[in-house]
Amino acid sequence: MDLSIYLQKKKELIDEALDIYLPSPNGYASTIHKAMRYSLLGGGKRLRPILTIASCELVDGDSDSVLPFACAIELIHTYSLIHDDLPAMDNDDYRRGNLTNHRVFGEAAAILAGDALLTEAFRLMTDSKTIFKLNTPVVLDVINDIAYAAGVCGMIGGQIVDLESEGKEVFLPDIEYIHTHKTGHIIRASVMTGVKLGGGTEEEIELLSEYGKAIGLAFQIIDDILNVEGDKAELGKSVGSDAKKGKATYPGVLGIDDSRRSANLLIDKAIGFLEKFDDKAEPLRMIARYIEARKK
Amino acid sequence: MDLSIYLQKKKELIDEALDIYLPSPNGYASTIHKAMRYSLLGGGKRLRPILTIASCELVDGDSDSVLPFACAIELIHTYSLIHDDLPAMDNDDYRRGNLTNHRVFGEAAAILAGDALLTEAFRLMTDSKTIFKLNTPVVLDVINDIAYAAGVCGMIGGQIVDLESEGKEVFLPDIEYIHTHKTGHIIRASVMTGVKLGGGTEEEIELLSEYGKAIGLAFQIIDDILNVEGDKAELGKSVGSDAKKGKATYPGVLGIDDSRRSANLLIDKAIGFLEKFDDKAEPLRMIARYIEARKK
Repeated sequence: MDLSIYLQKKKELIDEALDIYLPSPNGYASTIHKAMRYSLLGGGKRLRPILTIASCELVDGDSDSVLPFACAIELIHTYSLIHDDLPAMDNDDYRRGNLTNHRVFGEAAAILAGDALLTEAFRLMTDSKTIFKLNTPVVLDVINDIAYAAGVCGMIGGQIVDLESEGKEVFLPDIEYIHTHKTGHIIRASVMTGVKLGGGTEEEIELLSEYGKAIGLAFQIIDDILNVEGDKAELGKSVGSDAKKGKATYPGVLGIDDSRRSANLLIDKAIGFLEKFDDKAEPLRMIARYIEARKK
Repeated sequence: MDLSIYLQKKKELIDEALDIYLPSPNGYASTIHKAMRYSLLGGGKRLRPILTIASCELVDGDSDSVLPFACAIELIHTYSLIHDDLPAMDNDDYRRGNLTNHRVFGEAAAILAGDALLTEAFRLMTDSKTIFKLNTPVVLDVINDIAYAAGVCGMIGGQIVDLESEGKEVFLPDIEYIHTHKTGHIIRASVMTGVKLGGGTEEEIELLSEYGKAIGLAFQIIDDILNVEGDKAELGKSVGSDAKKGKATYPGVLGIDDSRRSANLLIDKAIGFLEKFDDKAEPLRMIARYIEARKK
């Protein structure tokens, strides 16, 4: 299979669905609708929702019925980017090659657009039009996984420790905490959502959980490396900003070579967890390799 | 019945539950736990969760199993206060007689604490320990109501129009939009959560929906009136701030007397919707009168 065609087709499917799920700007409150759409539809690899769909298809699940959940995870991811970019947080001007949300709509609208995307994710995942074909206890279980991964024991916990570590000496356990929480948990939850809603067995869920954990950490290590070695035009965001802000990063703790090696090991480990699956796991294997080799 | 004893007992029940549901500050990310607890446990009338419990008890539902949902609504309410108080929004220094969250923990932590409370609400409502006794399709329906009421078609929509109306001439339809969305929807959802999870009939749900709508709007009209006529010490927040900021308010559009009359009419209407219920509706009737007469 050709991964770039696979990713492109899935991305188109997701982009179309996101456009439909999100309310259009009209009448009252149109600023906030515009701000939501600006960040959500302004590019992005759609890696998390693609992982959800690929994991669902791996266990022969119905990818149509998992699509709203895949999109909900992208809404949560986008909210987290909008809030992370705020002046009080990372104070970034560019994201995905465009001005950040608050630079276009102002801080108040950016905070509210983030809040709205997060809330909308949970509305979408409980919409009776969305879930009527699904097993409701599994739906509740999946929403719980996602809320846990996005919350104070996951993404938000990672983000606050990340902010508090700026300019301080950090060690491997600290940076591992930050990365598994800030990025890893929600990537793992993306995979879990697909395999659980797709009807995977206990063993399949367990294997995919390990796969998700490994690629999640690897993804953030590569992100750190790209912030040192990447190309600004290709990345669509500034390079070298982590070092300037004194951010806790893998290269900062281990150096570039050992960080690269850690990422490679994690990707090999992730692919190892897919061993018992046949050719249907090819997309997940190739996505793991893509995470390892990505330039943006 | 003595309403003040009733409210006090329910408040104690809710405060205790909130303390248990919220993770304690320890290890990594303790700042955010502290910030969440500071605003959540620092007072508050607990009106929304009390409405949930009272509505559940009205239809002979099990109030223990509805408690986590009542608390989840309070988490959402608290997140909205933290974000509303931010410098980029209303820029308030005091809330419930205490310094606002960002004045104590800084803006970044306050934004994240709000995000975390919102996310935690959905985690709590899908926790298998919480919901095992409940009918899962009703749980999903209730979460959907709450997400809708808190989202861009509800609270957040009201908040952005509120901010955008500052200093502009507004008319009755505008202020009605702001108040029903910013405050009314989530108060109505609090009532809906109780009656739906409590096993209310279609007719009971319909009547309570109208009751919730009416008290929700009345609540915000009284809030506006208190911002003109209230006592700062009793309110725990500044008085006269709406006029200073050029906020869209009922007194601003209708004057104090007509605003008071509108609120009285809404409360009478709300109580009218409880007519077919017997003595068990007494708490909801008294809460409506309490909203009308409140000084804080």
